Amino acid sequence: MTRSLISPDGKIADRDVASKLVIIMVGLPARGKSYITKKIKRYLAWQQHEVEIFNVGSRRRGNTNTDKKDVEPEQHTPEQAAAMLLNGNLKQPPTSAPLSGQPKRLSAAEGRTAMRRASTMDQTAQFFNPTNAEASHLREQIALTTLNELLDYLLCRGGSIGILDATNSTIHRRQLLFDTIKAREPKLGILFVESVCQNPDLLEANMRLKLSGPDYKDKDPVQSLADFKDRVKAYESAYEPLGDYEEDHAMQYIKMIDVGKKLTHFGLEGFLSNGISNYLSSFNLSPRQIWLTRHGQSMDNHAGKIGGNAELTERGHLYSLNLYNFITQKRKEWLVEQKSKAAASSFPPVPGDKSPPYPELNRELDEKNTCVWTSMLKRSIQTAQYFEADDDYDVKNWEMLNELNAGKFEGMTYEGIARDYRTEYEKRQRDKLSYVYPGVGGEGYLQVISRLRDMVREIERIKDHVLIIGHRSVCRVLLAYFMDLTRDDIADLDMPLGMVYCIEPKPYGIEFHAYRYNETASTFDELVNYKPQRTVDRHA
Amino acid sequence: MTRSLISPDGKIADRDVASKLVIIMVGLPARGKSYITKKIKRYLAWQQHEVEIFNVGSRRRGNTNTDKKDVEPEQHTPEQAAAMLLNGNLKQPPTSAPLSGQPKRLSAAEGRTAMRRASTMDQTAQFFNPTNAEASHLREQIALTTLNELLDYLLCRGGSIGILDATNSTIHRRQLLFDTIKAREPKLGILFVESVCQNPDLLEANMRLKLSGPDYKDKDPVQSLADFKDRVKAYESAYEPLGDYEEDHAMQYIKMIDVGKKLTHFGLEGFLSNGISNYLSSFNLSPRQIWLTRHGQSMDNHAGKIGGNAELTERGHLYSLNLYNFITQKRKEWLVEQKSKAAASSFPPVPGDKSPPYPELNRELDEKNTCVWTSMLKRSIQTAQYFEADDDYDVKNWEMLNELNAGKFEGMTYEGIARDYRTEYEKRQRDKLSYVYPGVGGEGYLQVISRLRDMVREIERIKDHVLIIGHRSVCRVLLAYFMDLTRDDIADLDMPLGMVYCIEPKPYGIEFHAYRYNETASTFDELVNYKPQRTVDRHA
Repeated sequence: MTRSLISPDGKIADRDVASKLVIIMVGLPARGKSYITKKIKRYLAWQQHEVEIFNVGSRRRGNTNTDKKDVEPEQHTPEQAAAMLLNGNLKQPPTSAPLSGQPKRLSAAEGRTAMRRASTMDQTAQFFNPTNAEASHLREQIALTTLNELLDYLLCRGGSIGILDATNSTIHRRQLLFDTIKAREPKLGILFVESVCQNPDLLEANMRLKLSGPDYKDKDPVQSLADFKDRVKAYESAYEPLGDYEEDHAMQYIKMIDVGKKLTHFGLEGFLSNGISNYLSSFNLSPRQIWLTRHGQSMDNHAGKIGGNAELTERGHLYSLNLYNFITQKRKEWLVEQKSKAAASSFPPVPGDKSPPYPELNRELDEKNTCVWTSMLKRSIQTAQYFEADDDYDVKNWEMLNELNAGKFEGMTYEGIARDYRTEYEKRQRDKLSYVYPGVGGEGYLQVISRLRDMVREIERIKDHVLIIGHRSVCRVLLAYFMDLTRDDIADLDMPLGMVYCIEPKPYGIEFHAYRYNETASTFDELVNYKPQRTVDRHA
Repeated sequence: MTRSLISPDGKIADRDVASKLVIIMVGLPARGKSYITKKIKRYLAWQQHEVEIFNVGSRRRGNTNTDKKDVEPEQHTPEQAAAMLLNGNLKQPPTSAPLSGQPKRLSAAEGRTAMRRASTMDQTAQFFNPTNAEASHLREQIALTTLNELLDYLLCRGGSIGILDATNSTIHRRQLLFDTIKAREPKLGILFVESVCQNPDLLEANMRLKLSGPDYKDKDPVQSLADFKDRVKAYESAYEPLGDYEEDHAMQYIKMIDVGKKLTHFGLEGFLSNGISNYLSSFNLSPRQIWLTRHGQSMDNHAGKIGGNAELTERGHLYSLNLYNFITQKRKEWLVEQKSKAAASSFPPVPGDKSPPYPELNRELDEKNTCVWTSMLKRSIQTAQYFEADDDYDVKNWEMLNELNAGKFEGMTYEGIARDYRTEYEKRQRDKLSYVYPGVGGEGYLQVISRLRDMVREIERIKDHVLIIGHRSVCRVLLAYFMDLTRDDIADLDMPLGMVYCIEPKPYGIEFHAYRYNETASTFDELVNYKPQRTVDRHA
């Protein structure tokens, strides 16, 4: 957590253009670019940055935005964006000599026409052939229109980070984008992020995922896969990976090879670029489960007091035992299921095949450990007591998983605070996310988000299962990361004792399950189609 | 901060061999390997890991250890190491097929003889020619003896990380080292770290630094530089950088190019390797000053109370003003000095030339900012008040710079604690480093070290000057990092109000200056040859 004169809330300075960043994706189709952009967006949004993805492909298909979550009420249409571009463009001369003369100024009409034309054209592989002059011209115009939308977002609509999701596979295209950005605002940071697949299994699996994507949905899978491979070939013929050119021109970049297996970064400048590089370094696609729950009932829970470091009640101890039994059972079930899937999978995959896409990662199934991570507080450590006694689990206690520190209100009830510190109580009710408890050590949600940054990277990094036995605020913040919740939801998320959440990262997103502790039956019952929801507790 | 059953103090598990790591350096001479190893060692030791460097070159020259700080009382001689090797070797079969049959078992006599022979030989460039069979054989034997010393340290003497500092410039040599390690203990982690210089100015500057090193000290500089360049050529003829071979054999590595400018990592496994990669990613050689001081006197200081969030006294406010004047003056002096050095420097450098070695970094001197970083506590923020009012400074408040949280003793005096909580007081006196204050939020030095890890990376990353206005424990911990202090020194370091420390990172180490506030004269007086020392305050 930081605060500065310019940015009192620790977010990127709104007035400080130099700290804003354009991320330009690079890579052939089916290299996981959209997977990466979505994860970067989720991570940065969770860290309370204003971030949006601008997908060129979706505009090529005639949509202004594929990702519905990206659309905000004040979002501009391509027409509006092009009009703003006309008014706001070329404020400053470019800082480096462009490769192909001055960046083109795209008129509103040109942008509009290009998208309309492209959306009516036959967009099979031939459209992506670099020798198809008309299509090439159209694709460039659409890319520039999308970039200008992104720049409007950063310069006129308060955005901090804009991600341009497209292949950008030639030096010519990348230099054109670079010059267009610098022409509009030379201080903006620019970071290229390339995704490369060297592992043929990974590539084949990625391609198969495309068959359920927007270009091929409901079309013949065999023909679609062939067309898609032709499209990739069309790009490949002109593909120029990041490298010497960027280094000679001092353009910072990150190159990911086989999603986290290998990574190169060059010339990184600034806290954001470095943070993104660290985050991308921690990726892995190993199949695994991430479990999240609160500790069992503590003496203070029983008394309605917040904070403190109380022991578990008898009911809490019973929860510990049942949790241990439940996780142990689920772990066995998972292994059996994965193995049967792995045995049934054909490779290379055939269309319609629902087998796990990365079979080599299934080889290590038997060696997969389950880590159990608690805070340093007694109620969390005691909830892990049965796991500690079992060699199959690796228990670790983390400082950063501790409950939000309530400062001088530690040990009080919410009712007590409302009675004795009315002003503070109301301040918190008005804006729980920004509220910081008074007194030395007092924290707020923004502090908890900040201290859990390393925790999230650690969860992303390990290939083992993990069970986190946390506390209300910590579980809220972690669930918000995985479920991509907006800042308004985090502090009010329903997070009662006895709920257990299971997150399974998949190449196409996340599988989510929720279970509720059934104290009478000593079981955990799945809540089918459960979605994270707002708490009805008016205090918590 | 973490704790686990195996590792209750948050250090790497003593019994858990799988979490121990051998770092094998790779790179031609004058690529900054020793600079990197020393920084890794300093960083990891500061993070409370047991870590040692094993330098092959120093053993070639007939020393058992160059770095005096590495020598511990229980250090084994090469003879002892070789004897232990004979007894402990080849417990387990190698896990991967070695490149050149079974790893060689080196007898104690062979190791001893090799070192003795090598130390009496003419070690000019001809010694490093790969076609010189006798010398090659000797060099390999010395490398293996050194590696076995390293393995003894990890397996018999409680070490966590051993760094093998040598060129290791061929695949043959690296596979031999790999097999030797795996033969002795297959669970040990192995991380290759290569340093490459592509920038010719950087390389030339590095070579010049070698002229004052152990091989050339007091020899004719011109002849020495020529000999050194020949030695590098001898290595270059057989040099095989890290790459496809390591990737095909699933060997994890980090490749640094031009010290932090570009970095590639492959197949990183485990928290340690990832942490080292993040740390190495943050390096830069930009000339700059790092200033460290405590806040001005606070109301609580005046009353002898610890912790709290008091305002500055009048004396404290005066300190703020004088600190602002002092830093502003020092900043101007530095700029003048650097510019005159840069103007006087000849490049490529000539022997004896004391100009700054990396001239291209001096080009940005005028653009260098000074960041002023405070904690979130009033006494720290108020000490930065005059910097806030000056646009030339960029002031930021950091949560992680907050004073060590004294838990339920916040606001008490040490005398009060000694009187009312005798047991706690004595516990702390016995082991201040491990002591954690009781009560929710209470911290100890190990927690402060842990939360300052990101701060140290941020200080390493930025190219600007920085002034940190911290607190006693925070300043102790940061100074310990820069000055490579051992864990026993950290918690007792003398850190009174009014001291200002200046650290200037240099390619060969660190330049350190200390100043004491002269309240009567409103100046800061330099304490010439000041060394960090133990406090005489029996409480603090």
